[in-house]
Formats: sequence, C-alpha cells, structure tokens
Amino acid sequence: MRIVFDVGGSVLVPDEPDVDFIGKIAYELIKISEDHEVAVVVGGGKVAREYIRAAKSFSPNETFKDYIGIHITRANAMLLIAALGEKAYPFVIQDFRKAWEVIQLKKIPIMGGTHPGHTTDAVSALLAEYLQADLLVVVTNVDGVYDSDPRKNPNARKLSRITVDQLVGIAMEGESRAGGSSVVDALAAKFIQRGRIKTIIVGKEDARHLFDVIKGKHSGTVVEP
Amino acid sequence: MRIVFDVGGSVLVPDEPDVDFIGKIAYELIKISEDHEVAVVVGGGKVAREYIRAAKSFSPNETFKDYIGIHITRANAMLLIAALGEKAYPFVIQDFRKAWEVIQLKKIPIMGGTHPGHTTDAVSALLAEYLQADLLVVVTNVDGVYDSDPRKNPNARKLSRITVDQLVGIAMEGESRAGGSSVVDALAAKFIQRGRIKTIIVGKEDARHLFDVIKGKHSGTVVEP
Amino acid sequence: MRIVFDVGGSVLVPDEPDVDFIGKIAYELIKISEDHEVAVVVGGGKVAREYIRAAKSFSPNETFKDYIGIHITRANAMLLIAALGEKAYPFVIQDFRKAWEVIQLKKIPIMGGTHPGHTTDAVSALLAEYLQADLLVVVTNVDGVYDSDPRKNPNARKLSRITVDQLVGIAMEGESRAGGSSVVDALAAKFIQRGRIKTIIVGKEDARHLFDVIKGKHSGTVVEP
Amino acid sequence: MRIVFDVGGSVLVPDEPDVDFIGKIAYELIKISEDHEVAVVVGGGKVAREYIRAAKSFSPNETFKDYIGIHITRANAMLLIAALGEKAYPFVIQDFRKAWEVIQLKKIPIMGGTHPGHTTDAVSALLAEYLQADLLVVVTNVDGVYDSDPRKNPNARKLSRITVDQLVGIAMEGESRAGGSSVVDALAAKFIQRGRIKTIIVGKEDARHLFDVIKGKHSGTVVEP
Amino acid sequence: MRIVFDVGGSVLVPDEPDVDFIGKIAYELIKISEDHEVAVVVGGGKVAREYIRAAKSFSPNETFKDYIGIHITRANAMLLIAALGEKAYPFVIQDFRKAWEVIQLKKIPIMGGTHPGHTTDAVSALLAEYLQADLLVVVTNVDGVYDSDPRKNPNARKLSRITVDQLVGIAMEGESRAGGSSVVDALAAKFIQRGRIKTIIVGKEDARHLFDVIKGKHSGTVVEP
Amino acid sequence: MRIVFDVGGSVLVPDEPDVDFIGKIAYELIKISEDHEVAVVVGGGKVAREYIRAAKSFSPNETFKDYIGIHITRANAMLLIAALGEKAYPFVIQDFRKAWEVIQLKKIPIMGGTHPGHTTDAVSALLAEYLQADLLVVVTNVDGVYDSDPRKNPNARKLSRITVDQLVGIAMEGESRAGGSSVVDALAAKFIQRGRIKTIIVGKEDARHLFDVIKGKHSGTVVEP
Repeated sequence: MRIVFDVGGSVLVPDEPDVDFIGKIAYELIKISEDHEVAVVVGGGKVAREYIRAAKSFSPNETFKDYIGIHITRANAMLLIAALGEKAYPFVIQDFRKAWEVIQLKKIPIMGGTHPGHTTDAVSALLAEYLQADLLVVVTNVDGVYDSDPRKNPNARKLSRITVDQLVGIAMEGESRAGGSSVVDALAAKFIQRGRIKTIIVGKEDARHLFDVIKGKHSGTVVEP
Repeated sequence: MRIVFDVGGSVLVPDEPDVDFIGKIAYELIKISEDHEVAVVVGGGKVAREYIRAAKSFSPNETFKDYIGIHITRANAMLLIAALGEKAYPFVIQDFRKAWEVIQLKKIPIMGGTHPGHTTDAVSALLAEYLQADLLVVVTNVDGVYDSDPRKNPNARKLSRITVDQLVGIAMEGESRAGGSSVVDALAAKFIQRGRIKTIIVGKEDARHLFDVIKGKHSGTVVEP
Repeated sequence: MRIVFDVGGSVLVPDEPDVDFIGKIAYELIKISEDHEVAVVVGGGKVAREYIRAAKSFSPNETFKDYIGIHITRANAMLLIAALGEKAYPFVIQDFRKAWEVIQLKKIPIMGGTHPGHTTDAVSALLAEYLQADLLVVVTNVDGVYDSDPRKNPNARKLSRITVDQLVGIAMEGESRAGGSSVVDALAAKFIQRGRIKTIIVGKEDARHLFDVIKGKHSGTVVEP
Repeated sequence: MRIVFDVGGSVLVPDEPDVDFIGKIAYELIKISEDHEVAVVVGGGKVAREYIRAAKSFSPNETFKDYIGIHITRANAMLLIAALGEKAYPFVIQDFRKAWEVIQLKKIPIMGGTHPGHTTDAVSALLAEYLQADLLVVVTNVDGVYDSDPRKNPNARKLSRITVDQLVGIAMEGESRAGGSSVVDALAAKFIQRGRIKTIIVGKEDARHLFDVIKGKHSGTVVEP
Repeated sequence: MRIVFDVGGSVLVPDEPDVDFIGKIAYELIKISEDHEVAVVVGGGKVAREYIRAAKSFSPNETFKDYIGIHITRANAMLLIAALGEKAYPFVIQDFRKAWEVIQLKKIPIMGGTHPGHTTDAVSALLAEYLQADLLVVVTNVDGVYDSDPRKNPNARKLSRITVDQLVGIAMEGESRAGGSSVVDALAAKFIQRGRIKTIIVGKEDARHLFDVIKGKHSGTVVEP
Repeated sequence: MRIVFDVGGSVLVPDEPDVDFIGKIAYELIKISEDHEVAVVVGGGKVAREYIRAAKSFSPNETFKDYIGIHITRANAMLLIAALGEKAYPFVIQDFRKAWEVIQLKKIPIMGGTHPGHTTDAVSALLAEYLQADLLVVVTNVDGVYDSDPRKNPNARKLSRITVDQLVGIAMEGESRAGGSSVVDALAAKFIQRGRIKTIIVGKEDARHLFDVIKGKHSGTVVEP
C-alpha cells in the first residue's frame, strides 16, 4: 500500500515538541515502511500560532502569515526527520513530485506547508491524490468526526464511517458556522472528494499505534471514497 | 495604485495566440505602469485544455493535470512578456515575494499557475492580497457578473456592483449547480473576500482599454470589499 | 544498451496532442526499458511554432523565441511523462547530469529544450554523448534520410545506411540551400559526429514499433559512427 | 555607513516572540536605513533551543541539530521581515552576495543561520566582512563585555572599549572555561578580527534605541579594530 | 549603448591570472559603464585547457569536458568580479535573462560558459542577441581577423572591416581546414549573423583601452551586420 | 563502514592536475566503495592559491576570496568525478544532506568548499559528523602529524597515534605560532573532536593505497576519538 500521513502540528508540538510522541510515531512509521510506501505531511501547532499572531500585530497580510506558518511546519518536519533517522529523506520536501522520487529511493518524504492559501491538510490530500495513495491517515487533536462539536455538545456522537461527500458537507458547514465540528478544512475535504481517497481520521491516542490504524484497528472515523 | 491583473488564458489564447489582443493589452499595461505598480497573472486557455485532456486519457490524476496546466500558463505568460518588451521581467514569476521584488525594480512581474489545487484566479487573488494591492482586475470571457448564466438565460442581467460576500455566494452556487454564472471559482472568491480586495471584472472588449477600466470606465462588474 | 530517443514535437503534437501515438510510444518505451536504459528528448511541434510566431510579431529577438519554444517542449515532455506513468521521472529534466541520475533510479528521464541556440535535436545528440549512449533514435516527420528532398523530388531515394560524416554533409547542405533534405540540423549532426554516436532515423510509422526499431527492424536510415 | 546588525534570538523570542521589542527594533532600523545601508542577521532563541533539545533526544548528530536551528532562525527572521514591512526584502537571505544585491535595491536583507558549524554571530561577522561594513552592532542578552562573568561575579566590571584582539582572547577563554564571560563565540570573534570590523555590543535596553547606538550613545562595549 | 564584451580566457589567464590586465580591463569597463550598459562573458584559458586535458585522460566524453571548462570559466569570471568591486554583480550569471535583470540594477553582469556544446564566444553572441545589444566587443589573443593565418603566413593581412557573412565564411573555413584563421568559432559567427550584431574584434593591446575601442579607436576588425 | 575522504587540493593539483595520482586514487575509491559507503571532499591547491592571490590584489575581502577558492575546489572535484566515471555522482555536492542522498543511490558524492569561513578540512569533518561516518581519512601534503614542524626541525618525530584532544591542541598551537606543525586547521580539529570521529591522516604516498589505509596499513597518524 501507498499511505500518506497528515500529522497535525498541535499533536507534534502541543506546547513544546512532544518528544515521546514524535519518537513513538517515528517508530510506527518505520515499522509500516517495511511493507508499505509512506509519506508524511506535518502541520504547524502552537509555535506556528504564536509566530502568526506576532506577524498579525504588524500586518493584516494573510498570505504573509501563511509564509511564516510554512516556515514553522518545516521546522516541525525536521523534528520528525530527526526521529526517523536514516529512514527519512533529510530535506523537507516542497514539491509532490519530489516526494514521489523519495519513495523510489525507499525513503520517507516529509513535507510541511507548501504554498499560501493551503492548510497542511490540503497539502496532504493533494499529495495523496498525486501519489495515487491507497490511504490517507489524518492524525488530529480530535479523535474522529462527530455529528456535532464534541467540545460544545456532551451528547455529540463520533461517526465510525462516513462518505467523502459527507466529509465535504461537514467541512463546509464547519466553515460557515461557529459550532461546526470539522476536523479538516473544506478545501482539503474537496481534494479528498476529488481524488476519491480512502481516509482514516484518528486522534493522538490511536496515532501511537499507527501500525494498527492502517489495518483498521482504531476508534476514529473512516471516510469512504 | 498597486494593481493586479488576472488575464484569462482563453482571452489570450482563444484558439491560437491572439497577437492583436496581446499587443493591445501590453500597450495598455505599459501606459498604466507609468503611474501605477502593475503585476499580471495569466491563465491557461485552449492549449491548456487540450494538453490536460490528453493527460486525462492516460491517468485520472488531477494533481498531475494541474502541473501540465501550469506549464502552459507559463508559456502564455512568456507571450505577454514578449509583448511587454523591456517593461516586463523576463522570467515567469513563481513566488509572490519575487513578484514584489520585481515591482521594486520598476518592472512588471508576470505569473502563471503556481501550485496544484489552485486556479490562476486564486493565484491572482493571493497575489493581490500579498501585495496589498489597491485593485484586482479580472479579464475574462464573460463581460461581468450576471444574476444568472447569460449563456442559458437570455434575460440574465449583468450586475454593475456587488459585494465580496455576494461574489463568494455566486461562486459557491456556481460550483454546486450546473447553471451557475460564476466568473471566478469559489476559492478565488474566498481569497478576495479574506483580503477585502476591491475587484473589477471585465470582458475582452473592456480589456482593450484597461487604462480606462482602472479609472472606472467599463461595462463590467465592480466587487466592493 | 543505453538508448536516447529524440522525438520530434510535430510527431507528438501534430495539431493537438496525438494521444494515440503518445500512448503507443510510451508503451514501447516501457517495454524497451525493461532491458535497456532509456532517456527521451521531446521537441516543440505545432504549438511551439504558433507561440514563436506570436512572439516574433512583438520582437525579432531569436534568443527570446528560443525561450518560448523551450517552454512548449517542456509541456510536450509532460504529456509523455503522463503516458509513461510511474516509469517516468515526473519533472522535465534540464541538465544532462540529472538525466544520468534518473537512469540510476531505474526511471526514464524526459527532456525538452535546454538552452537558446540549440534545437532539441542537438540536445538529444549532446545527451547521447554525455550518457555515452549505445544508440540514438531520431523520430521525425520524414521517414529517413533521402538523397534529395522527397517533398520536391518524386525520385528522391531513401538511404538505408550513411556515415556520420555524410550526415554532417547533408545537414550542412540542408542549411545552406532551400531544397535541402536534412532531418537533423547541422549542429546536431556535428555533435553526433563528434560523439561517434550510432544513430537510427525513423518516421512516425516505424516509431509505433520502437521495440523493433532498436533491434534493427525499420525502414529508416542508419547512421554509422 | 554600511551597518550589519546581529540580533540574538533570545532577544527577539525570549519565550514567545517579543512583539513589542520586534516592533521597536524595526522602527529604529527603518529610521537608520534612511541614511545608511542596513543588513540584519537574526539568531535562534528559546524555540531553537527547544527544537534542538528535542532533536538531541533522537540523535547526537550536531550537524543535524544545526540544520534544525537554522530553520528556526529563518522563522525568526520572518518576524522581523513582517515588522519591517515593505522596507525588508521578503525572503530570508542565505548567501552574502544576495544580501549585497538586496542593499542595491535599497531594501534591508535579513539573514538567519546559513550553514552547520557556524553560529549566527559568525554569520554576522562574515556578512560584515563580505559587505566591507563600517560597523557591526551585536544585540545580545548581556549588555556588553565584562571582565568576568556578571552572572557569577557581582563585582564584574563592564568594559566600555576593547580591541578585537582582546575580544578574541575573551571569546577563546570563554570557550575553554565554564566561567567565561564571552558574548560572541570564538569563531565569530576571529572573523571580526580577520576583517578588522568595528563592533558595538549592546544589550536589549540599548537596542530599543539603535538609532542612538550607531551614533555612539549606548552603555555597551565598543570593539576597536 | 548596450555593449557585450567577450573576453577570451587566454587573455585573462594566460598562464596564471594576469592581474595587471584584469585590473586594467576592469578600470575601462567601469568607465564605460558610466555612460553605457555593459555585460561581460569570460572564457577559459590555460587552466581550463589543463583541466580538460586531465579529464580527457579519463574519458573521451566531450560533454563532460564542457562541464569542467564551464567550472573554470566561472572561476575566471570571479576574478573579473573581484577587480570590478561593487560595480559587478557578485554571482556569475548563468542565464541571459538574469544578465538583463542585473543591468536593470545598474550593475555589470559577468557570465562564463553556460551549457555543453557552446563556446563562450557563442554565449557572448547569444547574450548580445538576447539583450539586443548595440555592440559586441571580442577580446582575443589575435588582434583582429586576417585573410590567412598570421601564425603561418607572414604576409597575412589584417582586415579592418568585414561583413557578418564574411565572418561566417571565415569561421566555417577555419573549422574545416587546419590553416584557418578564425577568431570566433562557426556557431558563434552564425549567432552574430542571425542577430545582425555589430562586432569589433580586438587583441589584448587594444583591450587595455576598451573605452577607446567602443568609440572606434582600435587596430582590430569591425564586423558589419 | 561509512568513510569520508578529505583530499587536499595540493595533492590533487600540485602544479597542474596530477592525472596519474587522480587516476590511482579513483581506482582505490572504487575498490573501497564495493564494500563501504564512500564520500569525498576535495580541496583547492595551487590553482586556488593563484586565483586567491589575484583576487587579493583587488580587494582585502577575505570572504570574497573564500568564494573564489570554493569555485576552484569545485573544478578540482570535477576532475575526481571524471576519474571515477559512473561511480561518482556527476554534480559537485554542496549540502551534506545531498551527500547522504547520493550514498543511498550507491554512488560516491564529491564535495568541494561550501561556505566562506570554512576550509575544506572543516567541510570534511562536518560531513563525517553529519553522516555519522565510521572513519575520516585526511590525505595531505605532510605524511602525518609530527611533534614539531618537519620542514623546520630535522628531528621532528611523526606521531603514529594521538587523541582528538591532542589534535585540537596541536591545531590551535599551529594557528598561533609560525612554527606550528598542524595538518588540519583548528576549526576542523574541533569538529572532529565534537563529533568524536576516528581519523587517519596520511600523505600522498599512502594515499596511493587507500584500500590498505582504511584497513590500518599506512605510515600516517591515527587520531583516536
């Protein structure tokens, strides 16, 4: 299988780098890479938010803030590269075609953000589409997709299985309403829909056992293409 | 003023390169650049569609097709560079920050597509946002924004003035319904909304008089931020 | 064997992309690449001519026109990459040394034009020389080398075997006289001569059976080093 | 005058980005740049230390840690770019010659780390040497050079004026003894010595008035070439 | 005027770098650049020949040898950059469009070799064509164009004025016969012809007074377009 | 084993390229690469010194001279690439991470200088550290480390075994005194110390038998980590 992992920055760097978690996830990725082709996209997290907030105090320029965020995602990617050792390609990848090339070298390509106007969720969906991946695994702060926002509604119910079309619906609603419960943004959801990419969305606990996750053992949400 | 122009590929290369129109638009841009800072984004057009259709026959990979389209937009950008002569920066720009640098050189930066998952409309909106442009001028095949699709509804009425929020609404409706009348895609519209960018949408006839368009003399649609 | 293929743009994109031919040639190249090392250079064709003609209307600058032509050859290269799928390296190669590296990855490097002042025929000859290729196969609109221009002289006779020195002679004559019958330009011919590269020149029909061509089954012209 | 500023990361990002200080320093730099040519090198600070510590838990590879630190210095550089607005060159500069080019554009080049094995102090000294700068201003956590470590010896006395040779002596002693009081590392000091660069070393308070510092009004240490 | 200078490597580095001559030529170029736009292409010389000869002993690969030669031409270019000081762009230029950009910065772009299969004479002719230069000045070991090889024929007569077509004729004859008297190679001559570039060919003595040369005071050969 | 070789420029290019020695060393490296991972850093030598001396006559700028030296080291690296044939990666490597990538391709990466302020000795030590190499072999003009300068003291005694700490001591003394006997500079020595890299220092004669050297058969000096 060819699998793309989308690891949220706030999972990797909740406050400062979560060394234990990064080490664990690296261990799992190496194990998975023995039988599968693996690529990873890493997000921004708390440090990114701090730097973006600082930039915002100087200028309202959203595109510029995206560039700052991209810088931090790349630093985060370097942490995962450190943990993966010689299994990782040592440069942070910035082009999907280069990610493909790294896979040919039997190494794991690690990407961060690539371009203003895109979240790293969107990057991971485009990468999965470009690589014609069999599976996209999204690791996020929430442990799956809920029928309403679990932070607000104590009765929110986690959905174990949804369609890509439902994912798009939830993501678009999430963008238009304060009480949305989206775990990926609408643009990422649309790329997942466009590419008909099978997707698994899991939380940090499941992510400690990614080897199981890709075999279907997890408590997250499966998005059917 | 700092002005970004978004020139649709099908306007520049309807069938083959429209030398007369490219020459006319270059003439206007040079005149405008005497008093204003100018940047241009160029789209794909018929050749792009042909190449993408060919690629599609080999693979359903949308991201790959985006890469092919980007190649053609850059060739189109080279045509405009040829017409602008020494006023244009001779490389096709691929990063918004480089576009800014070219403006400091008192030259006109020309961009094509930049990244999969984005139209050149979205590129022009991001560029306008990054440059904190005073105005975005969209030159397209339709001569403005209509209240319904003018190709289907003979009673469709052109709107001379809409808000960015209306633009987003029309663009999103355009993506969800066959009979939409959008001239820019939803993502581009959202960037225009996010950046609160004043936008003028005009057709090819108006584009022959861009010097007038930026002064408000045109029969297109003004999008108020 | 290490083989370089030089595929004329007007063969790949006679009017618009010839999907059937591109698919066929990709099929043959993949089959050949199972036993041989393969690299391909792609030319410009009709779209390149249209774009160059448009540029010419703005400026007599030949070097600039070369840059435009290079852009189109790269778009053409992308079409062949699409058809070759995972067997092709997904970036258009711009340096001979990178082509060598791609071959080490067991992939097919695809080049277009590289530098003003060179045709893609010259690029393919230099590439063959750099790679110390065993064979250069030129796929062109004419089905071989003739003793006079077959478009003008109905009695022109195809030559099944010539020397590199004869090739240079024919190419130089072709450049100096209107009625020349050259299939490669003089500079390319000189590089073939300098590198003592065994070359086969075939037409589009033969090119549909490249697997046979490299084994000597074709109706084109063999250039002996 | 041509002036290089070396701003320590722990000054810019003590815990999280010090927006107030970054804004103040940007204000001063813009004022200075009206009469002088200005270039800035930015260091790592707390975030860099956290990321390097995390990397260290995976591998003892010092060179790799340098690469991670470089990533963070570049993110820090982006913060200063944000604060400088259109006066800054928007890319983080990675080559001294490019810094020179930016100065020709009448913009301020901002650098971070460039290469493993070098601190950003060494980068700033090399930049000053390359640019043949008239002055290097080092902004650091300590407010000057002391005759012994002020954090350990309450009677440590700040030196208002030393020679470059003394600076090298202090820096080398600082590297060999735990109780050293160096503010720049030995390699940086040697580059300052080699280039005979007039240097002013000031603390954060003085740095809020850089416009005065370059005129000699400060309570830091002057290093005479 | 826009002027391209083509300075032969054996003029700059006859045995080792001719510091006196490099300094003199730099002085003249700076003086010229006060009133004119200037670009320079530098050749290989003795060191290039030594390195190429060494490479030849390992492999007959001509293209590879070109790459080695290009490396040395770039080192030679750096010498001229050193001598020109802040008037020169500090990177060796590798693309004609970048040379144009440097001219916009009011600096002198210095190029070496660019691509296998081209001499630096050809590079200078293409650069002159690309820049639409008013004049190309070739500085070479021979002090002009002769009607036969002055090293062999004591009665050889220097031609003070020839046409570009004659230049091509002489250059092509020079390549086909041992006793040719060409000062530029045939490819370079053809680019000069194609671009209709006014050219002055002078020896090292004249080159010490380039300021006079461009005003027509020299004992070399003028090539009329 | 993973082995980094640091080959001094004056060994490769004593006066002009030493073709015999380059060929011999290439032969040995190919033999070694059958069982080991190999990377090489090449220095400057006589040509570098000539070019740097020339640059010095124009400007005292040390950093600029470093850039010139780097150009020559890269030309030297090309000579070794020529001799290694298809076993070498054909581009001169400029980033340690790329060197690692080349090793994954089962090819030998060749580096020259990388950045001002570093000798190629320092580059080789950093490369060894980055690659976590098992061994660094320094090939230099002197045939090992002596207890005093063998060129001055006829009784100088070669040390067959020293510690990295002793190496640093000798190197630092060598920089501070005219009569030092250092074979690597202090910065390189410190990187060797920091990385705890086992190092063998041999002269040109031993270098003709590198295959033996790495097995411990040589008359040079072993530096124990």
